[in-house]
Amino acid sequence: MKNYFNPSSVAVVGASPDRTGFHLLENVKLTPGVQAYPVNPKYPELAGLPCYPSVSAIPGPVDMAILLVPARFVPQVLQECGEKGVGAVMIQSAGFAETGEDGRLLQEQCLAIARKNGMRLWGPNCMGLVDVTNNRFFTFMHSHITGALASGGNLSLVVQSGMLSAGFLADLATRRGVAVSMACSLGNKMDVDECDVLQVLLDDPSTQAVALYLESLPRGRLFLELAEMADKPVVVLKTGRSASGAKAAMSHTASLAGNARLTDGLLAAAGVGTARDFHQLVDQGRTLALLPDLPAEARVAVLTFSGGAGILSCDLLEDRGLRLAELTQESLRALAELFPPWMPPSNPVDLWPAMEQHGVSETLERAAAIVAEDPGVDLLFMHSFLGAQSSSHNLKGIQDNLKAKGKALAFWSLGLDEPIKLFQQKAIEAGVPLFGELARAVDCVAAASAWRGKNKPAPRPAPSGRPLPEGLPEPEGVWDEQGSKQLLAAWDIPVVRELVAEDLAQAEQAAKDWGWPLVLKGLMPGEVHKTELGLVELGISGPDELAAAWDRLQKVMQGRGKVLVQPQHKPEYELIVGFLRDPQFGPCVMLGMGGVLAELEADVAFEMAPLDQARALAMLDRLRGAGITKGFRKLPPLDREALAGLICRLGDLGASLPGITQIDINPVAVERGAPLALDASVIWEEPA
Amino acid sequence: MKNYFNPSSVAVVGASPDRTGFHLLENVKLTPGVQAYPVNPKYPELAGLPCYPSVSAIPGPVDMAILLVPARFVPQVLQECGEKGVGAVMIQSAGFAETGEDGRLLQEQCLAIARKNGMRLWGPNCMGLVDVTNNRFFTFMHSHITGALASGGNLSLVVQSGMLSAGFLADLATRRGVAVSMACSLGNKMDVDECDVLQVLLDDPSTQAVALYLESLPRGRLFLELAEMADKPVVVLKTGRSASGAKAAMSHTASLAGNARLTDGLLAAAGVGTARDFHQLVDQGRTLALLPDLPAEARVAVLTFSGGAGILSCDLLEDRGLRLAELTQESLRALAELFPPWMPPSNPVDLWPAMEQHGVSETLERAAAIVAEDPGVDLLFMHSFLGAQSSSHNLKGIQDNLKAKGKALAFWSLGLDEPIKLFQQKAIEAGVPLFGELARAVDCVAAASAWRGKNKPAPRPAPSGRPLPEGLPEPEGVWDEQGSKQLLAAWDIPVVRELVAEDLAQAEQAAKDWGWPLVLKGLMPGEVHKTELGLVELGISGPDELAAAWDRLQKVMQGRGKVLVQPQHKPEYELIVGFLRDPQFGPCVMLGMGGVLAELEADVAFEMAPLDQARALAMLDRLRGAGITKGFRKLPPLDREALAGLICRLGDLGASLPGITQIDINPVAVERGAPLALDASVIWEEPA
Repeated sequence: MKNYFNPSSVAVVGASPDRTGFHLLENVKLTPGVQAYPVNPKYPELAGLPCYPSVSAIPGPVDMAILLVPARFVPQVLQECGEKGVGAVMIQSAGFAETGEDGRLLQEQCLAIARKNGMRLWGPNCMGLVDVTNNRFFTFMHSHITGALASGGNLSLVVQSGMLSAGFLADLATRRGVAVSMACSLGNKMDVDECDVLQVLLDDPSTQAVALYLESLPRGRLFLELAEMADKPVVVLKTGRSASGAKAAMSHTASLAGNARLTDGLLAAAGVGTARDFHQLVDQGRTLALLPDLPAEARVAVLTFSGGAGILSCDLLEDRGLRLAELTQESLRALAELFPPWMPPSNPVDLWPAMEQHGVSETLERAAAIVAEDPGVDLLFMHSFLGAQSSSHNLKGIQDNLKAKGKALAFWSLGLDEPIKLFQQKAIEAGVPLFGELARAVDCVAAASAWRGKNKPAPRPAPSGRPLPEGLPEPEGVWDEQGSKQLLAAWDIPVVRELVAEDLAQAEQAAKDWGWPLVLKGLMPGEVHKTELGLVELGISGPDELAAAWDRLQKVMQGRGKVLVQPQHKPEYELIVGFLRDPQFGPCVMLGMGGVLAELEADVAFEMAPLDQARALAMLDRLRGAGITKGFRKLPPLDREALAGLICRLGDLGASLPGITQIDINPVAVERGAPLALDASVIWEEPA
Repeated sequence: MKNYFNPSSVAVVGASPDRTGFHLLENVKLTPGVQAYPVNPKYPELAGLPCYPSVSAIPGPVDMAILLVPARFVPQVLQECGEKGVGAVMIQSAGFAETGEDGRLLQEQCLAIARKNGMRLWGPNCMGLVDVTNNRFFTFMHSHITGALASGGNLSLVVQSGMLSAGFLADLATRRGVAVSMACSLGNKMDVDECDVLQVLLDDPSTQAVALYLESLPRGRLFLELAEMADKPVVVLKTGRSASGAKAAMSHTASLAGNARLTDGLLAAAGVGTARDFHQLVDQGRTLALLPDLPAEARVAVLTFSGGAGILSCDLLEDRGLRLAELTQESLRALAELFPPWMPPSNPVDLWPAMEQHGVSETLERAAAIVAEDPGVDLLFMHSFLGAQSSSHNLKGIQDNLKAKGKALAFWSLGLDEPIKLFQQKAIEAGVPLFGELARAVDCVAAASAWRGKNKPAPRPAPSGRPLPEGLPEPEGVWDEQGSKQLLAAWDIPVVRELVAEDLAQAEQAAKDWGWPLVLKGLMPGEVHKTELGLVELGISGPDELAAAWDRLQKVMQGRGKVLVQPQHKPEYELIVGFLRDPQFGPCVMLGMGGVLAELEADVAFEMAPLDQARALAMLDRLRGAGITKGFRKLPPLDREALAGLICRLGDLGASLPGITQIDINPVAVERGAPLALDASVIWEEPA
């Protein structure tokens, strides 16, 4: 991969005297420390450099070749690259899998050539690599755009879509005042994908956070493992979520869109931030890059020019789990000296009256200096209207002083166009996240506060690898409830007491042993929807009801299957715990709220399996209904450790037996706080 | 009110040769058709006009006086205004209720003078009125800002906060390319409030939508009644929602923050859009102003330059309840003619290959013309990168053609700074909502699609005014379950069968009559938390259990109270229906999902009472769990009409008996689809 990011020599195949072939060559030629070799049989010379008829004709070694020739010529050029010993090829041309079946076959042909020759392939259908920090522009972007990119950014971007990258970078630079370090456009990802690039960026000293726009995540498990153990925050915008969106993804870059809910759940589990739009992705990424050390539930001091903005800030901060700092008496006394006597300051601090006395710049700097000393403040959220006088704001001084005291700074502004542009540059230089919308500012600060920082999770446990116990049903297919629960019990998952009743008398005996009420379930081979078929009889509270229920079951079952008898439990509420094996993410576990109402509005958390107790407990905290675990109203509190243990053992079970594709434990009853599997279903499919 | 919006003569009290007093006078002087009278005893002449020592000294009549004098002088000036017969006074000075108790008293003193003299008061602590369409700037804003405001907007703003209005308008005009028609800054609202101003704006021909930033909503019921029956869409950002935010609101403009959940619910019921930030409020408002006729679940054609943006658009549209249009074969064939043969077009239409052949402007115009003819399209969502060539985009032509075919247009762009600025102006002139972020564009279009348009709801019913039936408990205080349900039954609300058992034998007889299982409840005077006290015995399934439950109850009750016996129901699920009387909104009803899990994450809808069947049905549809009413899995579908009728009758009950402050029906069991009140509690407080 380093041939892509730091090559000494680059062949530009398809260089030309105008258009994209010209821009690409110019960009490569201007790269410090890079020998550029234009390749095009039509020209003896291009841009003042000797031009070669083919890659083979280049005299020296070639670290990377960038291809900008029509798609149909690509295999031949790849062959030449292979013979030349080029290790890294970047195909920026379009016309591959995104155009249909023929293009897909062409892509496969290319990949085969690369594999045979030990070459890596980046692209096709991409804009290549922009490395602002090191002045490397391996892209056909116009110099209008590359020239406009501001340096000093420490966020790196990975984008799948080609057209978006140039336009988006131009927009960020000229409209938003956002600086990025690197931007990698991956296109169809026939070989090099986000995992390869993420590994490089996580090691890159100029990158402090990585933001990725992805239409697919084929090596999902590896991606999550990298992100989970990374020292830098990672943010993702994953598209192709909707039915119609997934269709468009298929035709655009031939991507396979994953299950959106599973993907979201696993990204959350790995501590990866998620965004729903391009600009939001970048805003979140750059905030994480600039404020990686903000503590959880950060305490915020708001210094504003507008009482209204102060009030709205409070609403938004509280809504996002941040706290308004309680300023010390000392801070309040010091602030009061800036104010006219009729206006006692409090957080949020409406500085307007002070600004009228001392001017805006001086007021901001003096107030910031006071807040910097306050031990109860983690972040200063500063607001200013940027007009003609704002050029005297000493942003760098304010930031340096806060940093020295271990505090963070975020800035929101309204203002006139030109003063804002100048201030954006100041903000980049000072390393201060600057926002134009208040809600966006709070959302991004909250994302930074929610990041785990340097506290990486423990490594994941390995699966125990225990084999399938003896005496269980034939593995292949859908297991019945009884067999499924026997398997769970073998992994020490608590399951409901039950017996198979051969006749009514045995069921009556169960009632004598266990007490009323009882549950009867008819188990028929291959049937999983017992309730829908009338095979579940609940709350049987006496002998007459039992006899009637027994008869009803026999009628439905027509002599096939068996009758399971269980005591009726009265849980406080129900949960669902599951296991699934996903093509992108491998073995995973799921935890969700149960019951009819909860199913209408899915409240679920996911993790990859096997997992440890800490990760299982964190799943519980990610549920929207997490409050229930703390003892809601008069309910006994949930035995969190027991539930987490259950989830871990289920994860180990599924991960240890590769034939299992799915397990549902539905419901897991919670009775007096203890989890108990009342029903379960295992699906086993021998690996092909 | 018309003296504020269209005066012939304006006194500027506190005019001065510099700073705010100068800007205000300049602004008023330049207003067409207005005679400006500066008032300041220090100067014989200001800005070329004779200056008067007092309001009384002004020779002609005065329609409006604007006061920019220190707060302590305001009462005296008001007195003079009253004597002079000025009908409308606008106090732009600060130093009133927002500064504490002294300021509040000063405000009361001013109000008393105004009441005595039949004057209206606007402010204090505000920026006044900006009417861009009619060139009226009754504000101390600098001419830098008023001069920068773009004309041609049809959205009007109402903002409570003073500082925010000038800075915000400047930001909108110079940074965002947003034009507004009027902006009314209300400040402390000691007399004129959002209801007064809303009425004017709803009648103003230059206003097509109204966006309000509010810190309080003191005449909440009137506001909602106005918005509900308005011909124009209304959008609100209501702050002071959080605990800390409400505290800041108290100290800022001495506002009382309402119950955020109730406010949100009633705004939704009245068809008022809600925003969570200033810019989002304006974006939503201007989209509603420009696209008021967009149908519900609008069908959207996406024309884009970026496949990635197309995919993300699909995700976002689906997420917000909009649909991707199915283009006709004819449209697809016509689009294909723009494309190279290797790229068959489909919606979202990635126009890049066509743009490479025909140029961007021509491709957009031709593709838009094709989509304009497609009967399956309601909205064209067009994307373009705006660079050097974008000046040739014929936005007006595209918009006119679509409008002629009854279709709407929304535009998203990335781009370079200068081209975007020019295009913003074009978009204002063409009346096209232009967005810089994709998600914001979709959110706003979805808000426009969700607006009811011209379909106003029927007028609300009057309360029946039925009196309290005879024989019910003493009204005052908390009623017990039995009495509460007797009152509900008198309004034909279905309640569970029940009897008071004097002894165990009577309870046993109930089981014989109704069958097992039974419920026993101990009713003790003044106790409402029966479950928490151990006064509810559920699922009693036989004589032994009954006897044990009876004994337990007697032990808790210690001879006080009575025992209620009910059959145990087995509902599919539970709802909560309630009534409350709110100081801002008057009588209201509430509908929510019941049960333990639902309570953790409140899912509730509100309406003002009395209400009609249509409004009650709409409440049901606003629940997040609304899917349950359609028959989830094997559940019988909810009898929606029966539940809506129950809500209407509860609303009439509460509205007809002014002593009732609160009614909880919790739970309303839904059994075989039919709603049934299982428990209820009425609170009666005689009006003071």
